[in-house]
Amino acid sequence: MPDFSEATRQLAAAIGAEQVRTDEPSRFAASFDNSRFSFMPAAVVLPRDEADIAALLRLANKHRVPVTVRGAGSGCAGAAAPLRGGWVLQLAHWTDIEIDAAASLAHVRPGALTGDIADAAAAHALFYPPDPSSVKYCTIGGNIATNAGGLRAAKYGVCRDYVLGLEGFLPTGEFVRWGAPLRKYVSGYNMKDLWIGSEGTLGVITKAVLKLIPRPLLRHTFLTAFATDEAALAAAVALLSAHVAPSVLEFLDTQTVACAEQRNGFPVFPKTELAADSVGDGNDDGAAGGVPAVLLVEVDGSHPDALAADAERVREWARRHARAFRETADVAEAEKLWNVRRTCSQAMFLLGNAKLNEDIVVPLSGYAPLIQFTREIKARTGLATPTFGHAADGNFHIHIMYDRDDAAQCRRAEEGILLMMQKVVELGGAITGEHGIGITKSPFLRLQHTPAEIAAMLAIKRALDPNNILAPDQIFEVTNVWEHRPVKVTLPWDKH
Amino acid sequence: MPDFSEATRQLAAAIGAEQVRTDEPSRFAASFDNSRFSFMPAAVVLPRDEADIAALLRLANKHRVPVTVRGAGSGCAGAAAPLRGGWVLQLAHWTDIEIDAAASLAHVRPGALTGDIADAAAAHALFYPPDPSSVKYCTIGGNIATNAGGLRAAKYGVCRDYVLGLEGFLPTGEFVRWGAPLRKYVSGYNMKDLWIGSEGTLGVITKAVLKLIPRPLLRHTFLTAFATDEAALAAAVALLSAHVAPSVLEFLDTQTVACAEQRNGFPVFPKTELAADSVGDGNDDGAAGGVPAVLLVEVDGSHPDALAADAERVREWARRHARAFRETADVAEAEKLWNVRRTCSQAMFLLGNAKLNEDIVVPLSGYAPLIQFTREIKARTGLATPTFGHAADGNFHIHIMYDRDDAAQCRRAEEGILLMMQKVVELGGAITGEHGIGITKSPFLRLQHTPAEIAAMLAIKRALDPNNILAPDQIFEVTNVWEHRPVKVTLPWDKH
Repeated sequence: MPDFSEATRQLAAAIGAEQVRTDEPSRFAASFDNSRFSFMPAAVVLPRDEADIAALLRLANKHRVPVTVRGAGSGCAGAAAPLRGGWVLQLAHWTDIEIDAAASLAHVRPGALTGDIADAAAAHALFYPPDPSSVKYCTIGGNIATNAGGLRAAKYGVCRDYVLGLEGFLPTGEFVRWGAPLRKYVSGYNMKDLWIGSEGTLGVITKAVLKLIPRPLLRHTFLTAFATDEAALAAAVALLSAHVAPSVLEFLDTQTVACAEQRNGFPVFPKTELAADSVGDGNDDGAAGGVPAVLLVEVDGSHPDALAADAERVREWARRHARAFRETADVAEAEKLWNVRRTCSQAMFLLGNAKLNEDIVVPLSGYAPLIQFTREIKARTGLATPTFGHAADGNFHIHIMYDRDDAAQCRRAEEGILLMMQKVVELGGAITGEHGIGITKSPFLRLQHTPAEIAAMLAIKRALDPNNILAPDQIFEVTNVWEHRPVKVTLPWDKH
Repeated sequence: MPDFSEATRQLAAAIGAEQVRTDEPSRFAASFDNSRFSFMPAAVVLPRDEADIAALLRLANKHRVPVTVRGAGSGCAGAAAPLRGGWVLQLAHWTDIEIDAAASLAHVRPGALTGDIADAAAAHALFYPPDPSSVKYCTIGGNIATNAGGLRAAKYGVCRDYVLGLEGFLPTGEFVRWGAPLRKYVSGYNMKDLWIGSEGTLGVITKAVLKLIPRPLLRHTFLTAFATDEAALAAAVALLSAHVAPSVLEFLDTQTVACAEQRNGFPVFPKTELAADSVGDGNDDGAAGGVPAVLLVEVDGSHPDALAADAERVREWARRHARAFRETADVAEAEKLWNVRRTCSQAMFLLGNAKLNEDIVVPLSGYAPLIQFTREIKARTGLATPTFGHAADGNFHIHIMYDRDDAAQCRRAEEGILLMMQKVVELGGAITGEHGIGITKSPFLRLQHTPAEIAAMLAIKRALDPNNILAPDQIFEVTNVWEHRPVKVTLPWDKH
């Protein structure tokens, strides 16, 4: 890796030594994200204001120093890891949130936590819906960089749907504004939406204005059990085909439910409720005998009668399709129904000390073939493949659990995940629905896109970043993460 | 203009002479859009399939022939006019519409009429909300090219919010797919949203997949009258600040209402209802004595009780703010309330034989200053400045009416519209909310964007279209439309 010490010295002289951290702990803490692949930067820079960022980008272009923008580092694909070293531009301390209640807008800085923005909006009876599972830890800047999704996306959309305007810097250091705090805007090219989801490779976001909507006041929650994964997914398709628009429709396959039950020490539904003789039938997953697949369904709204009517439609659907179900309109009771969903991700570590987590998307027609294929991979590799996710938009999180200290298991996991990704694309799906490509998905990018499509994307990267300063080689350069060992650290979001 | 006859001969040889029209009537009909500025192309090409488009783009790149994609030609900014001649790529005959009701998707070809798509969706109890006023005539390809809006945008969003995937060709002739028929997709750069609204300069769209939503079954309509423009706009802001989400909130200023009343031969509200002594107070518009400003408000939904509750909130608001109002939940009755809105655009021609129509956007804080400024321009130029538009999203259509055969009026209109655009930007607004820049707004582009922003956009144009084939000089090259005389033609949408 080139030596950036002279450039770093000039940067410290330009913006102040206290803004430029070169100590090892600071550099290590900024060297990885939630994927835990560590690439050490030369320095971590905490700008005070826009002028500091402009100065940094000027020097970076002059000396060809890679610059990686960082928020909370809660991303899953390694996009915040400084793959080619250089400088980490840390913006987690830019946390301002200002709610314009009359105009239903939030003006935010990139380091503001997504959950804090949602809370600030809620204080004005307003709603910022996108809710990635890291909502209490992740920054809005990172959400915009990856176009983060969440559980409620099918009804309420993703991050992109709420970003009206962005301010920031081109890779070459010029300050720009894309879009505006306006609900309609079609002047010039839509650079705003090009920045959103470009994973920090096309610009540095310093401000965003978000659209807020009236907050739904009420919700009604159902936990429903099915004999097999296929039965649960067929029921999900039936619910969607009836044009019920659930705010939440979370699927948990039998492998996932089995983990959660083992961790919690009690079944999601008592066996007596499930007519145990038939539950698990048709499911070739031996580990999950008697364990149901689950759909967590929520409808929301602000008018009690309208919500009751929607709930009745879900109830009729549950009576027709589910083996058992529970429901509540009470918030505290709903938390109990949510328990299985909230615990399942950590519970999976009962099946292996390492987890591949791929946020793929398939169309309705691909739901059943996908879940069958995960079990096929389980049979072929001998590794557990628990799957859960957002059945209303086809965004499933497929997993392969393995032992990182077992070379043979690593190899089988690597082979298995490639087969999964090939299957996803074959089913007309997407290799990533909300995490992005970053480093970890780069080996699969060319499954999704043709050479012409990649060439067009790279032409845009070169057009906006001629010196290849911003997050160089992210997304497009194939990085084999199996050659890198993730660091062993406990991150704030590991606890729940 | 260069001679493209050899290239055109080669094109006819490649894809068939019957696909390549060079007769004058065909060329003239494809030489302008709704803005009526005519630029004659060398040929109009009606491709049979994707292979024909690929062949056309190959030859266009080889011979440097400008290519302008065309749908119905109902655009307002001249983006479909072949500004630099060359070939018009006509896609209005590619009209396929296929509804996937289970997945709530519409698969469409670019020539499908937007209204036909909405009707096809409605047959499955589904809803495609964007409704530009040309909805019965415009094509979805044109809607995507301009990111068309409409009346319901504040509640339901614009065209962009419903486009999940696009297929088509890069300017250089490679076939590409951006996005997919999926509700989440974050793989690679978001080229889909870069194409949307790029006015035919970055790619040729041959297919689109649109998201559909459950259709609201009921609506409740209010027609409300106010003493002054300012009172109506203050009431609109009050309604929005209360987080009522009207599906329609159309503002008509007193000048506009006066035109409609004159054309219809009867007042929108009988004078006796309006407490005539005070109506018009505080409004310096002499022409509108006794004529109210109007807000047309609609709330919609699928549950009767919920809709009734929303309607009651609007009713309370109307009682508090309006001088008079009428309301109905009956569809036929609602059409009567809509009459003033539907007739106002044509009625304006009572004030002049030519109209400048600018679809600007201002934030809530700019509503009152904007309407005051339109009257200031009226006073300064002596030309009428009727204004109506979508008060829920700040997208107002400001007009200057003038006599095209009067050189002095033309000059004053030209000066007036520049002052209006400067004011809009000064108020934090946008020079276009749904029409696009095309040719007619090109003189104002640099009011909206800095040189760095324009340079970034042009870098993208060069990166994707190195031979500058697709709609060259649209958007970015300043074209002074006052040097061109619009053609006198009656277009299908002129009648209502």
